[in-house]
Amino acid sequence: MALMETAATMIFTDCSSSSSSTARLLHFSSSKVQKFPSTISHFRRSNALQFAIPNTKFPRTIITYCSSSSAVQVTNEASATIIDGKRVAKDIREEVAVEISRMKDKIGIVPGLAVILVGDRKDSATYVRNKKKACDSVGINSYEVRLPEDSTEEEVLNHISNFNDDPSVHGILVQLPLPSQMNEQNILNAVCIEKDVDGFHPLNIGRLAMRGREPSFVPCTPKGCIELLHRYDIPIKGKRAVVIGRSNIVGMPAALLLQREDATVSIVHSRTRNPEEITRQADIIISAVGQPNMVRGSWVKPGAVLIDVGINPVEDAESPRGYRLVGDICYEEASKVASAITPVPGGVGPMTIAMLLSNTLLSAKRIHNFS
Amino acid sequence: MALMETAATMIFTDCSSSSSSTARLLHFSSSKVQKFPSTISHFRRSNALQFAIPNTKFPRTIITYCSSSSAVQVTNEASATIIDGKRVAKDIREEVAVEISRMKDKIGIVPGLAVILVGDRKDSATYVRNKKKACDSVGINSYEVRLPEDSTEEEVLNHISNFNDDPSVHGILVQLPLPSQMNEQNILNAVCIEKDVDGFHPLNIGRLAMRGREPSFVPCTPKGCIELLHRYDIPIKGKRAVVIGRSNIVGMPAALLLQREDATVSIVHSRTRNPEEITRQADIIISAVGQPNMVRGSWVKPGAVLIDVGINPVEDAESPRGYRLVGDICYEEASKVASAITPVPGGVGPMTIAMLLSNTLLSAKRIHNFS
Repeated sequence: MALMETAATMIFTDCSSSSSSTARLLHFSSSKVQKFPSTISHFRRSNALQFAIPNTKFPRTIITYCSSSSAVQVTNEASATIIDGKRVAKDIREEVAVEISRMKDKIGIVPGLAVILVGDRKDSATYVRNKKKACDSVGINSYEVRLPEDSTEEEVLNHISNFNDDPSVHGILVQLPLPSQMNEQNILNAVCIEKDVDGFHPLNIGRLAMRGREPSFVPCTPKGCIELLHRYDIPIKGKRAVVIGRSNIVGMPAALLLQREDATVSIVHSRTRNPEEITRQADIIISAVGQPNMVRGSWVKPGAVLIDVGINPVEDAESPRGYRLVGDICYEEASKVASAITPVPGGVGPMTIAMLLSNTLLSAKRIHNFS
Repeated sequence: MALMETAATMIFTDCSSSSSSTARLLHFSSSKVQKFPSTISHFRRSNALQFAIPNTKFPRTIITYCSSSSAVQVTNEASATIIDGKRVAKDIREEVAVEISRMKDKIGIVPGLAVILVGDRKDSATYVRNKKKACDSVGINSYEVRLPEDSTEEEVLNHISNFNDDPSVHGILVQLPLPSQMNEQNILNAVCIEKDVDGFHPLNIGRLAMRGREPSFVPCTPKGCIELLHRYDIPIKGKRAVVIGRSNIVGMPAALLLQREDATVSIVHSRTRNPEEITRQADIIISAVGQPNMVRGSWVKPGAVLIDVGINPVEDAESPRGYRLVGDICYEEASKVASAITPVPGGVGPMTIAMLLSNTLLSAKRIHNFS
């Protein structure tokens, strides 16, 4: 969750005029392309819900409107079950709060989460503030270090080292992106694996990939996706699953998690030919590419379950803010074909911080051998 | 490569009578099942080429004959290119030998590979002997420790620790399986990552899974599979690839490697419904399940490239040994549909040791900063 911000050029296209049946990930119709207004650019650097996946090779973010039914023949008008991530996240926060209270009563330990923030990006500051608020709400102590933009890598490493040694800290997050003079890999690798509540350490990812091994922590966003499936009693074993996007923080670990639960998994990405054809075979789709409304109704097998990780701003003159948030999946079309779907906002979004709190509790329990 | 031995109950069925179009991984017809003769059981413990994948949940090994064309309509009688692993492995050994000689001349360093063998399993002894022979042939020094069956975990860990510290050793292998009193995970984790030429360390696997990270070593058998594709100029980028089997040592890392090369990858396993249907979409199939002749001609898209990791003994009264070796793929059928195929034996098999030699050279070069 510390990794959700990368700037991307944004392009605007009305997908109701593009043929969805021939769409290819990188080849959306560009006939209606126009520069995105700078106000929206500004938005992308300040809105807490903005969610773009770094490391994907999609060269740009496409802003796509899908207008209800013009491009897609929707035969099933019944609406899908709405997977209410906001409610589930609230349930989880309450469960975490109960456990923290029990832990405090029994052994006098309160879990602690440390966040290191370098520089003064507004979006990063907002993320950190939200994490702090969430910690407060469940009774996790939060510790924060703010360093100036021109800090050295060594200073950051020193703070990490202190938190690694501090027994009151059970989870450590370094808010990304870091200033360019710093080596992100060095810094992330310095967080000791027992406190890597983000679960991004390669040792964690390796254990996630290997049968018979257990990761210390599962990355929060993909963990949130699977948790939603579990809480809605959606079977995974033996199902065909397609993950769209292969980022280190969402797509790839989500695919590994689905495979651990015995799904048959395919990963669709920017180099995939015919993503629509493969996606349409899926019983479960997890999309995490940051492409507004990319997954059209025609990409979805009737009855499929759709988990939408994308949170993308699109221009909306009717909104007082001038924009609204949409997912990677064209909700209006897909919700008529799917059996269940996460809305945006209010789907996967709230789950990420809930999972961070859950991982921090898990860490404290493990360190203090409390069950 | 140290992991290729697990005993499995073997069952014998004639697949020419089962309907290939409805085959499901775990549901082969069992009407013709009979116990496998004990002589073959003996074989499985002693033959150097035997290759069964551990950790797969296939509950038994099925011995399947595919008789030429009875079950499958083969429309294209043209034969596929035979991917000659024996020749490629020989080329690689020669290249490794040249590099080792150059290294010795320039900096006086000779790469060293240490193997630890516990107990007296005949098959393990054969593997170790073959590795030693291969090392000798390219000029790698090999070191061997043989410990009795009743050794303690601590003794093994001590030897690993010594090899970790020994500057003349650049690669360390622990021959598996280990006696039951030992914890395999503890022992494998003790090999320092810089000398883990098998590439099985979870940190290595994590780096393999993550974009922007580089594993220290790629596991030898999957590396061998990809090397064969490269040496035969078979494009991977943008292709549909299906990996059959999800073992830690072959299937899973092979899928990660294909994805690193921008293939669109699906993993088929024992819980997959309709494996045939998914497999038939693939441009590239890598099969690593240890199920003789499981992949029939009807599973293969015309023109697909087939990499067969399975090496399975099947009864053969006409052979002087009473058995012959077949792959997971029904060669006779599939070679008429595919554009290229690895034979068994002589395909992937010889590549594994060649990649081990290559990884050992790589390790020595890296440790001594030689390029």
